[in-house]
Amino acid sequence: MTSTLVERLQEALPAGSVIVDPDITSAYANDMASFCDAGAPAVVVLPRTVEQVQHVMRTATALRVPVVPQGARTGLSGGANASDGCIVLSLVKMDRILEIDVVDRIAVVEPGVVNATLSRAVNEHGLYYPPDPSSWEMCTIGGNIGTASGGLCCVKYGVTAEYVLGLDVVLADGRLLSTGRRTAKGVAGYDLTRLFVGSEGSLGIVVGATLALKPQPPQQLVLAAEFASTDAACDAVCKIMADGHVPSLLELMDRTTVKAVNDLAQMGLPETTEALLLCAFDTLDPAADLAAVGALCEAAGATQVVPAEDAAESELLLQARRLSLTALEAVKGTTMIDDVCVPRTRLAEMLAGVERIAEKYALTIGVCAHAGDGNTHPTVCFDAQDADEGRRARESFDEIMALGLQLGGTITGEHGVGVLKKEWLARELGPVGVEVQQAVKAAFDPLGILNPGKLF
Amino acid sequence: MTSTLVERLQEALPAGSVIVDPDITSAYANDMASFCDAGAPAVVVLPRTVEQVQHVMRTATALRVPVVPQGARTGLSGGANASDGCIVLSLVKMDRILEIDVVDRIAVVEPGVVNATLSRAVNEHGLYYPPDPSSWEMCTIGGNIGTASGGLCCVKYGVTAEYVLGLDVVLADGRLLSTGRRTAKGVAGYDLTRLFVGSEGSLGIVVGATLALKPQPPQQLVLAAEFASTDAACDAVCKIMADGHVPSLLELMDRTTVKAVNDLAQMGLPETTEALLLCAFDTLDPAADLAAVGALCEAAGATQVVPAEDAAESELLLQARRLSLTALEAVKGTTMIDDVCVPRTRLAEMLAGVERIAEKYALTIGVCAHAGDGNTHPTVCFDAQDADEGRRARESFDEIMALGLQLGGTITGEHGVGVLKKEWLARELGPVGVEVQQAVKAAFDPLGILNPGKLF
Ligand SMILES: Cc1cc2nc3c(=O)[nH]c(=O)nc-3n(C[C@H](O)[C@H](O)[C@H](O)COP(=O)(O)OP(=O)(O)OC[C@H]3O[C@@H](n4cnc5c(N)ncnc54)[C@H](O)[C@@H]3O)c2cc1C
Ligand SMILES: Cc1cc2nc3c(=O)[nH]c(=O)nc-3n(C[C@H](O)[C@H](O)[C@H](O)COP(=O)(O)OP(=O)(O)OC[C@H]3O[C@@H](n4cnc5c(N)ncnc54)[C@H](O)[C@@H]3O)c2cc1C
Repeated sequence: MTSTLVERLQEALPAGSVIVDPDITSAYANDMASFCDAGAPAVVVLPRTVEQVQHVMRTATALRVPVVPQGARTGLSGGANASDGCIVLSLVKMDRILEIDVVDRIAVVEPGVVNATLSRAVNEHGLYYPPDPSSWEMCTIGGNIGTASGGLCCVKYGVTAEYVLGLDVVLADGRLLSTGRRTAKGVAGYDLTRLFVGSEGSLGIVVGATLALKPQPPQQLVLAAEFASTDAACDAVCKIMADGHVPSLLELMDRTTVKAVNDLAQMGLPETTEALLLCAFDTLDPAADLAAVGALCEAAGATQVVPAEDAAESELLLQARRLSLTALEAVKGTTMIDDVCVPRTRLAEMLAGVERIAEKYALTIGVCAHAGDGNTHPTVCFDAQDADEGRRARESFDEIMALGLQLGGTITGEHGVGVLKKEWLARELGPVGVEVQQAVKAAFDPLGILNPGKLF
Repeated sequence: MTSTLVERLQEALPAGSVIVDPDITSAYANDMASFCDAGAPAVVVLPRTVEQVQHVMRTATALRVPVVPQGARTGLSGGANASDGCIVLSLVKMDRILEIDVVDRIAVVEPGVVNATLSRAVNEHGLYYPPDPSSWEMCTIGGNIGTASGGLCCVKYGVTAEYVLGLDVVLADGRLLSTGRRTAKGVAGYDLTRLFVGSEGSLGIVVGATLALKPQPPQQLVLAAEFASTDAACDAVCKIMADGHVPSLLELMDRTTVKAVNDLAQMGLPETTEALLLCAFDTLDPAADLAAVGALCEAAGATQVVPAEDAAESELLLQARRLSLTALEAVKGTTMIDDVCVPRTRLAEMLAGVERIAEKYALTIGVCAHAGDGNTHPTVCFDAQDADEGRRARESFDEIMALGLQLGGTITGEHGVGVLKKEWLARELGPVGVEVQQAVKAAFDPLGILNPGKLF
């Protein structure tokens, strides 16, 4: 079976693009999520053209072989994990930036372009591609589209979905579909573009994207505010939003996270506070905006408010925040990273609840959060060798999602469902929601060969 | 048949909500598009609750009767036109604003709320609901969602789609589906919310919406620039965008439109210029931004640049722009309003092409445009009593769409496809696009009872 498969694939793919050596293919088995099942791929393919991707999908359809699309495999939900006997379809070799236009403010790219590469390229034209997951130096645009990734900038600029104008997608049976447009607006027919964004490789293979760009804003200036409780920090977040501010980031790191970052990288963050809030503005007069926000933080009980002196100090604070997940991983060797997003008004309850859950399960759970969006990353730190701790980690992880739903939130603000949160997706969507989502899936992938076992 | 239908409907709807008097029901036959087929509804229902809508859809499914959802019927593509023997399902009585939250920056509304009513209500909380179709004093949020409406603000704030976080939708068979969320972010499952936005009532009935709001920006200040050619005006648009500006509106009115507005409302706009560009900023220092843009306009050859003195003068210019379509209708009694959106870089070619087409068919075609978005409204003015002129109008209308596609644009930037542009949708999407769109339609509406004959 595998030999037929490989022969068929090689008919239209150069030899080096079809890998069967298990030492190599096993390296493609999973993304960066812990404790997600992953199978052994039959073959890994690394196409360079749309036609090659079409050939892969035609072959997969003919032979009824599952296909798992992959970008850089930095995903945190097992969404790119292989299933047994599958074709891993890695898009990383399709990594060209085809066009950048300053008047139309668009970029046309292949899916394997790394986020940071694109960001830097458009910067050179005075343009800005906002979506900035903390993994931006590694992750690909295709993966960002697959998960509808967010980042620090979302509170002002929104997630990846907001920047995808049009897509080229190879469907399960190999047909090539173009969705959307390269115009600023367009409402011709159903918005299939957005349907593919966040679909985690389960509806089609993204082989090209037309992305919207913004003019580059002024350099942002960051302020750090220390609080004696997470409650007070969350109160500050609500005050800032109620007062009509539009910060370019509004992030929270709890004590555990701050300490972890200091331990990893000696950043000199203040460890004596319970919550550190980072707020930034990329306006024309960021100092004035930060002064107003500083006053609101003080009104909410901030023990200290420290505006960054300059761009360099601002960048250092952002680096600290970006290191959070990696730093928390170092605490006990392994983490399960939750991604619950709640209405801002419920953020304080969410963080208090996570603290209760950490106590209940006798675990370290550090929280960093895109606080301005109510998007929290409670990160359960545990020792993977310790079976009991592993079990408690999983239970606490689930309880955090239950709490998020109870507070009117969602189980995933930006990391996606993958295999990690499948059961929870059904709880969030309810029976009608699942029925409809499955009907959509069936319309695109009647044979169920696209990234099976994910989402549902 | 109709009597069974009416009896079944009345089982769960109060008598006054089920209308069969043909004198009344005929008034619900069509929206504001000219020359679109419309049938005679069997019955008009005006439900006030979600349960009543569910009952209507269950009845329609049981009896296989088509259902046409309607808002205020200001649509410009026949999307809300009745089909023979259908149930017209008007949502205008479901018009409550259920919630406005300043911290979460959301509004929860029923579909029949009028756009201007919502806008004013959120203003009172210091908030801003950007989508502002020129019909905003009449059109409903449900209709805005049905068509993914735009308006003057889109160049900075985007279209309706950007502001819909979650929906309650009654499906064809009466099931109630909740999509999306009330959180700022969320990626749990496929983005069905966006699939419904712009689906023109063909996938389900929107019975509730959670909308994102922005803090109210400062009052915008408008500048008017006169040009001796549309080419020069379009060049100014490109220069403004290339220079990194983010105007809150950037509109173009050609000579015909300017004259029509003056004739209708004595606005005192300058009639001697070929193109009038309106640009506005709602930044902290709009005068500075307008000065920069004014200089760019002059560099592009503007013959005169006149910044508004104050908010009142700005508002007057906007009113003039908003009157454009109505004013052009007065020219010959009837109009066909195109809605082609092209990449900004092709705007000048588009307008030149429209002029050629007007000459070829010996017709008056006025153009107003959301120039910053490349979204043009070439408006064919004609006498509906004159059969030959009507035929030429339709031919020129089609030729304008062909030109838009040729320039890499879309046939509809904001007005939707309805019945007016059905054939053209197929041309824009291509065969694979149509197949996939129809598969999606079938997944939601297997019996084909929801707004049949629209889109495809
Ligand atoms: C240290 C660290 C920090 C992170 N920070 C953030 C953050 O701030 N915000 C955030 O949102 N995420 C974050 N992530 C998660 C992850 O980086 C993002 O989800 C990212 O978008 C994944 O991109 P990737 O190229 O690695 O995709 P993969 O992990 O390879 O794939 C992700 C999903 O997309 C699908 N896919 C990939 N390419 C395609 C394609 N071409 N066509 C169709 N489907 C495709 C896959 O099947 C899979 O379901 C972080 C991860 C790490 C390790
Ligand atoms: C003078 C004038 C100026 C205009 N200016 C603009 C403009 O600047 N920008 C713009 O985008 N449009 C504009 N329009 C077009 C029109 O106003 C918009 O399309 C508007 O969104 C329609 O809203 P409505 O309530 O009238 O909906 P309708 O016309 O009643 O319906 C529109 C579509 O939505 C569907 N629909 C309505 N309610 C629901 C529901 N609850 N559930 C599911 N489907 C539903 C209908 O079936 C139909 O397909 C203008 C129209 C006029 C007459």
